[in-house]
Amino acid sequence: MTTGVRIEQDSLGSLAVPKSALWGIHTERAILNFPISGIQLGTHRHLVRALAFVKKAAALTNTELGLIPADIGHAIAAACDTVAAGDVDHAFPVDVIQGGAGTSTNMNANEVIANLALETLGHPRGSYDVVDPIGHVNKCQSTNDVYPTAVRLALVFALEDLLERLALLSAAFAERGLAFAAIPKVGRTQLQDAVPMTLGQEFTAFSVTLEEDQRRLSEAAALLLECSLGATAIGTGITADPMYVERIIDKLSAVSGVQLVRAHDFVEATWDTGAFMTFSGALKRTAIKLSKICSDLRLLSSGPQTGLAEIRLPPRQAGSSIMPGKVNPVIPEVVNQIAFFVAGADLTVTMAADNGQLQLNAFEPVIAHALLQSLSWLTNGTDVLRDLCVEGIEANEALLRSRARASTAQATALLPMLGYAVAADIAHKAVVSGHSVLDIAVAEGLLLPEQAAALMTA
Amino acid sequence: MTTGVRIEQDSLGSLAVPKSALWGIHTERAILNFPISGIQLGTHRHLVRALAFVKKAAALTNTELGLIPADIGHAIAAACDTVAAGDVDHAFPVDVIQGGAGTSTNMNANEVIANLALETLGHPRGSYDVVDPIGHVNKCQSTNDVYPTAVRLALVFALEDLLERLALLSAAFAERGLAFAAIPKVGRTQLQDAVPMTLGQEFTAFSVTLEEDQRRLSEAAALLLECSLGATAIGTGITADPMYVERIIDKLSAVSGVQLVRAHDFVEATWDTGAFMTFSGALKRTAIKLSKICSDLRLLSSGPQTGLAEIRLPPRQAGSSIMPGKVNPVIPEVVNQIAFFVAGADLTVTMAADNGQLQLNAFEPVIAHALLQSLSWLTNGTDVLRDLCVEGIEANEALLRSRARASTAQATALLPMLGYAVAADIAHKAVVSGHSVLDIAVAEGLLLPEQAAALMTA
Amino acid sequence: MTTGVRIEQDSLGSLAVPKSALWGIHTERAILNFPISGIQLGTHRHLVRALAFVKKAAALTNTELGLIPADIGHAIAAACDTVAAGDVDHAFPVDVIQGGAGTSTNMNANEVIANLALETLGHPRGSYDVVDPIGHVNKCQSTNDVYPTAVRLALVFALEDLLERLALLSAAFAERGLAFAAIPKVGRTQLQDAVPMTLGQEFTAFSVTLEEDQRRLSEAAALLLECSLGATAIGTGITADPMYVERIIDKLSAVSGVQLVRAHDFVEATWDTGAFMTFSGALKRTAIKLSKICSDLRLLSSGPQTGLAEIRLPPRQAGSSIMPGKVNPVIPEVVNQIAFFVAGADLTVTMAADNGQLQLNAFEPVIAHALLQSLSWLTNGTDVLRDLCVEGIEANEALLRSRARASTAQATALLPMLGYAVAADIAHKAVVSGHSVLDIAVAEGLLLPEQAAALMTA
Amino acid sequence: MTTGVRIEQDSLGSLAVPKSALWGIHTERAILNFPISGIQLGTHRHLVRALAFVKKAAALTNTELGLIPADIGHAIAAACDTVAAGDVDHAFPVDVIQGGAGTSTNMNANEVIANLALETLGHPRGSYDVVDPIGHVNKCQSTNDVYPTAVRLALVFALEDLLERLALLSAAFAERGLAFAAIPKVGRTQLQDAVPMTLGQEFTAFSVTLEEDQRRLSEAAALLLECSLGATAIGTGITADPMYVERIIDKLSAVSGVQLVRAHDFVEATWDTGAFMTFSGALKRTAIKLSKICSDLRLLSSGPQTGLAEIRLPPRQAGSSIMPGKVNPVIPEVVNQIAFFVAGADLTVTMAADNGQLQLNAFEPVIAHALLQSLSWLTNGTDVLRDLCVEGIEANEALLRSRARASTAQATALLPMLGYAVAADIAHKAVVSGHSVLDIAVAEGLLLPEQAAALMTA
Repeated sequence: MTTGVRIEQDSLGSLAVPKSALWGIHTERAILNFPISGIQLGTHRHLVRALAFVKKAAALTNTELGLIPADIGHAIAAACDTVAAGDVDHAFPVDVIQGGAGTSTNMNANEVIANLALETLGHPRGSYDVVDPIGHVNKCQSTNDVYPTAVRLALVFALEDLLERLALLSAAFAERGLAFAAIPKVGRTQLQDAVPMTLGQEFTAFSVTLEEDQRRLSEAAALLLECSLGATAIGTGITADPMYVERIIDKLSAVSGVQLVRAHDFVEATWDTGAFMTFSGALKRTAIKLSKICSDLRLLSSGPQTGLAEIRLPPRQAGSSIMPGKVNPVIPEVVNQIAFFVAGADLTVTMAADNGQLQLNAFEPVIAHALLQSLSWLTNGTDVLRDLCVEGIEANEALLRSRARASTAQATALLPMLGYAVAADIAHKAVVSGHSVLDIAVAEGLLLPEQAAALMTA
Repeated sequence: MTTGVRIEQDSLGSLAVPKSALWGIHTERAILNFPISGIQLGTHRHLVRALAFVKKAAALTNTELGLIPADIGHAIAAACDTVAAGDVDHAFPVDVIQGGAGTSTNMNANEVIANLALETLGHPRGSYDVVDPIGHVNKCQSTNDVYPTAVRLALVFALEDLLERLALLSAAFAERGLAFAAIPKVGRTQLQDAVPMTLGQEFTAFSVTLEEDQRRLSEAAALLLECSLGATAIGTGITADPMYVERIIDKLSAVSGVQLVRAHDFVEATWDTGAFMTFSGALKRTAIKLSKICSDLRLLSSGPQTGLAEIRLPPRQAGSSIMPGKVNPVIPEVVNQIAFFVAGADLTVTMAADNGQLQLNAFEPVIAHALLQSLSWLTNGTDVLRDLCVEGIEANEALLRSRARASTAQATALLPMLGYAVAADIAHKAVVSGHSVLDIAVAEGLLLPEQAAALMTA
Repeated sequence: MTTGVRIEQDSLGSLAVPKSALWGIHTERAILNFPISGIQLGTHRHLVRALAFVKKAAALTNTELGLIPADIGHAIAAACDTVAAGDVDHAFPVDVIQGGAGTSTNMNANEVIANLALETLGHPRGSYDVVDPIGHVNKCQSTNDVYPTAVRLALVFALEDLLERLALLSAAFAERGLAFAAIPKVGRTQLQDAVPMTLGQEFTAFSVTLEEDQRRLSEAAALLLECSLGATAIGTGITADPMYVERIIDKLSAVSGVQLVRAHDFVEATWDTGAFMTFSGALKRTAIKLSKICSDLRLLSSGPQTGLAEIRLPPRQAGSSIMPGKVNPVIPEVVNQIAFFVAGADLTVTMAADNGQLQLNAFEPVIAHALLQSLSWLTNGTDVLRDLCVEGIEANEALLRSRARASTAQATALLPMLGYAVAADIAHKAVVSGHSVLDIAVAEGLLLPEQAAALMTA
Repeated sequence: MTTGVRIEQDSLGSLAVPKSALWGIHTERAILNFPISGIQLGTHRHLVRALAFVKKAAALTNTELGLIPADIGHAIAAACDTVAAGDVDHAFPVDVIQGGAGTSTNMNANEVIANLALETLGHPRGSYDVVDPIGHVNKCQSTNDVYPTAVRLALVFALEDLLERLALLSAAFAERGLAFAAIPKVGRTQLQDAVPMTLGQEFTAFSVTLEEDQRRLSEAAALLLECSLGATAIGTGITADPMYVERIIDKLSAVSGVQLVRAHDFVEATWDTGAFMTFSGALKRTAIKLSKICSDLRLLSSGPQTGLAEIRLPPRQAGSSIMPGKVNPVIPEVVNQIAFFVAGADLTVTMAADNGQLQLNAFEPVIAHALLQSLSWLTNGTDVLRDLCVEGIEANEALLRSRARASTAQATALLPMLGYAVAADIAHKAVVSGHSVLDIAVAEGLLLPEQAAALMTA
């Protein structure tokens, strides 16, 4: 008898597991097989919670149908509550980068839940003859329906966090848009001075675009609600009781609070990764929009003396050890980098999807990690962008006004009234004389002063 | 006076244009500036057609509002009909890879339409004092609202072709699914023998997945219907008559037969490339699904002696000059490659979107080319996959039946009745004896013959 | 008897080929099988030329060894010269996007060369009993060694064009660097004003970086010189005469003028796509450098009134129909877009490489097209960037000088002499007073006038 | 006075730092600014070590030149030794995903080293008037030369780990290649039976390809040895003593044990990310090769009854809860997924490189993280692939032999002797009769028995 460990068995033989471990032999083998990233499953809080909901729904359904004894079913359900609450995340040590199509993740959950249930029932850990991780906790299930379902639920949960922060960020841009509504500036296309606009219009557009992306993300997430629970190994429902198959998805909806719908074709649903691809694409779209906005913020705040210098970002840290007074746009910069990572993750998802074969895609674990990490980083990035940057942005109003007044960009506004040739002539005189386009037009009697004033604020 | 050319003027000076050319100086400069791909704008039939619709809608609206003379407006509208019909695609020689955010494409259209209108009115080409490419054809417009609108319309048109072929392909898979409905086989997960299914289920799933993708593509295309026509340079509508702005989108809907909606915020809409990203993602999703299916078809038809050998693809060409009788899966292979290209195009779109700056994304031309080419290749690939491959696929039925009968995969079906231990024992005996799992179960009195028969066809 | 066609046979049956066609039945089937991109093989001039060299080397070797009759061998060699010269590119109609791992490309070459040889020998097209595309032209060869060899050679040829243009471009940047050597400016990090430099240093760095990339491209291309000719189908050299295998690579080196080396392990070399990946990565690196430089050029030339306005790009086309006098950086913009395309092509190559299976990578055709197109576009883009942009760039010298003098960036130069605290104090006074940092330092007696002058030009 | 914290100052104001912290205010601000990934800098062991080497080299050089007092210089050098040894990795809490172009990483190192030096000198933490993180530890340096140098060194160190494991893996494949040298099999192209080879040739090729990749990785790493230390902020060496600039790179070579070379043009070297791109491409190439090999291993071990079943991978964990006896290729699967991640990381690097602007690339932190994580995961994946999979692979020799004997693939070997028509006829008879190609050829008197035997082992 070994001190400090217990010996467990599986079809490959026996292995020592730490006596105190809530997990069992399948998890232990996975720890040995996948020492890849050092990032443990338990760091994906939403995934652990989702697994608990799936297992609870199955336990309740199996209990109702008499497929497992009631006392065991209730102990399992209680164990799932413990897991869902986040009290035992440390008991999910399997690496997030793993082979086996999620089997180790499923078995990690099965084993932890069985041992927690055994505790409730007054049995020592590892007494699987009483509560069996496979025979009881995994009853009527397969990794191939449990794992994708849990990943989908986890993504839905994680998206809630992101959407909440995006809503705050777009509100912050909208507020700045209002604050800057009366500040005129020269709009730019292809980085060249174009025509007049207001700084408020520019910031409002940032708000509008992020609002739209929240809708796009929600639409993409709707596809994740299609559920294949009951499909078991390859979609034929083998080993699952027909009554279980009929009830399990409604039960999971009730347990998780997320309204799921049954996949139309279980065979297709078992190998299909389309919903992950669509969701990944939506995340990439949002990330690229944030990146574009942050690049704009960096451009608009460039300077202070030799750049565009239209706005000032709140200083967050000294920018240089050797350049006195230099402050850099560190918050937008970090968000740009998150976007580059999310785009990379979308490629990871694409290649994983492309490599799926026959009745299953074996590469869902890397899809799950790529998406959950992207969501987490985007959520954090969105939050710091609002909190540490956008809410404190100020306009260099005087500079903007004087530039707007001096700009030949206003010649375009004269086109409908004066025609291209006259407008171009005035623009040329403005560059040469240093006077504003509108002043010249008024001085030459081509425009009334009140018309000029109206154009300034158009 | 130069023979064979006419001299045209613009703000940079003068340039010779071939006398016979329908285009003018702006197009000629673009030809000189962008000798990049050798692929001319005119090869994107749908884009030329969409440009014609936009210009016609503008001409009709400008005419109705009295912003251009009626005779000129009607001549322009007639010219647009000619362009839309595809009669002058050769007059769009600008390279598809171009700088200028689409200005050269817009000007190519303006110039061709002006010269066609001049012809109708009995004037020689280049008489822009009569019909002005800018003053008349481009009236109330800017490249920055015309070009994105035309690209969006073109994508909607091109998608119709793809959807039509996808519908035929999924129908072909469905038909094969029905034909193979009674053929049992061993399903595989992670390339390992798993549990029984039918070949029909496998092919039906291909049909189901492509049907879903048609819906996803249509949803993504719906975002393309958001239209910024009237926004002009940066979304403020500068130089456009307010009545024109109010009417132009409805007019374009009528002219094109596509129901467009007005973008919520013109400033945002002018720089936003989100709809292109979403659409690109949907194309990539479909491409990857086709790739996965084609990889499966190549796996299932591998052999003939040492592969899976479950199906036979119709032979399309001799596979080798030195291996007698070898026939290769050339059609699925070409579709795989199209998918790799489409995934690459999605990255091109992503980087173009990310590099947009301030009030405009200057890189829409490469986005347009990437998406239009992806659509065209996917359409062609979908068509040959159905026509030259899927419709002629046959099953190696005898082999499949004998393998299904011999497979220990059926042990899983015994789990609910006999439990894991007994099922595993029978599986082991089957491997050792060469008898089938069901035969052994019946022989040992664990299963009634009729139960065995039922499991075979489950 | 059909008029206008001839009937040819292969192992799948018979098919009509246009009587005038230089190609035969295998090519004709390929035309029918792969109507994908509409881009014909013949547009890849370098690939057609490389195929001719491979076939000529084989014909000469087979003739020398007596494996084919001398008269036939000579006729084939002469035919290869015709193909290499570019006289019959139109006879290579197979789509560049094709299944079959290049078989159709190889057979297209075999058939065209056989028919050209038949012409020389006075026989009608299709008389394959006299000159056999397989038995004679393809003697001792397989698509699986011919095709990759030809693609590699083609890339080496195409790279010569790119390297020539890159050398001219880096020379142009170097020349501008010299011209701008004495113009001071404020360097920027993270888009914020940093420390002094010269405009010449900035342009010289563009030259230096492109010079280095020429070396990197050449190193990557060196891997393409590893040749598997003689490996035939899977690397075991089956059907090839051992003497042929011994001699063919030296012969191809002589015929092509490119010194090739024999691959170390033919089995590995037959499926390996590593050299393509490395070469693709090198192209992407160069593309991204060009993109970064072009983004800088667009930034530095932004304005004219509200941007950085440090340089002026030569105007190439009117920038806008509605903004009088606007000129856009259209040449850098087109180069940016080429880079986004090349990055996408690298992904295409990556996925094609990843999907290779067992003894062959069936997806080399899309790799070949992606790389050849990237090379061609990069070559063209490099050329227009130099010719139409870089050589004509001018500095806004007066503005740069006045900004450099006014900049607090010079405070950093005072650090070693005066310490951080004093330097920061002077920088603050400079911002408040509008006087330059150096003037203040001199006025306060902290710096001698000659020290100030020296720092200005450091 | 606050208990448990100390108050530090910087140019933005003051902030509380935990009294026990080795870091200071700049690090503390970075913790607050970048709560993104939760992955701390200290997990990149090689990067912390490299930073320590750079700081030690600078301290020694500054001491030698009398730029800092000797006692302080020695205390700093000793502190660097402590950091290099890995004793204080926990004192590097800044998030790996950060804005500021590495400033926070550099300042984290400066502060930790200053406080360790203060400890040696008997002063409390935070006594920066004695040892100044900027004035002493960062003397003659800028983040913009320190950070890239440290990242490059870190990559060189991390590559050593990977190369060591790759060498072991290629040796393991070579050993299996030898063990399988006499086992005949049917080679496959395009998944179709092609011509004979040995299993040994297949495994040897895996070894050969990985050996080549070790050379490619080393070549790519050589570019990382180009060093810009002394360039300071933008490459002009501002604030650095000229003697320091002359000596620092040699000193760092001595301290780190890595022979570095001075970058040709410091201005270019300060913003250039080419070496990172090349290195990333080399990592991707190796990753894709491993992925291709792992896909082959999964294919070759598919079955056991309905797959290729040529080899058996050592079982590592039970493959299924519901399919008795199923064992999956979990180790190759995890390596495939690592490859998909590395490909994604290469895209992250590409986008970061593309977004660099003017004198600096602000996005090197995400490049550093992407590359260091890719190296770590590849190293771990290579190790488990060898240890848990390749070394235990066994051949299904009897099956391979019987299939090789029965295969019509051998008809190709008859081509040179018997010609295409006769060989095809024999192949056809073999399929119909079930006899082997060679047996029929011998029976028909077309081949001597000893010729047949020779062909079997060719």
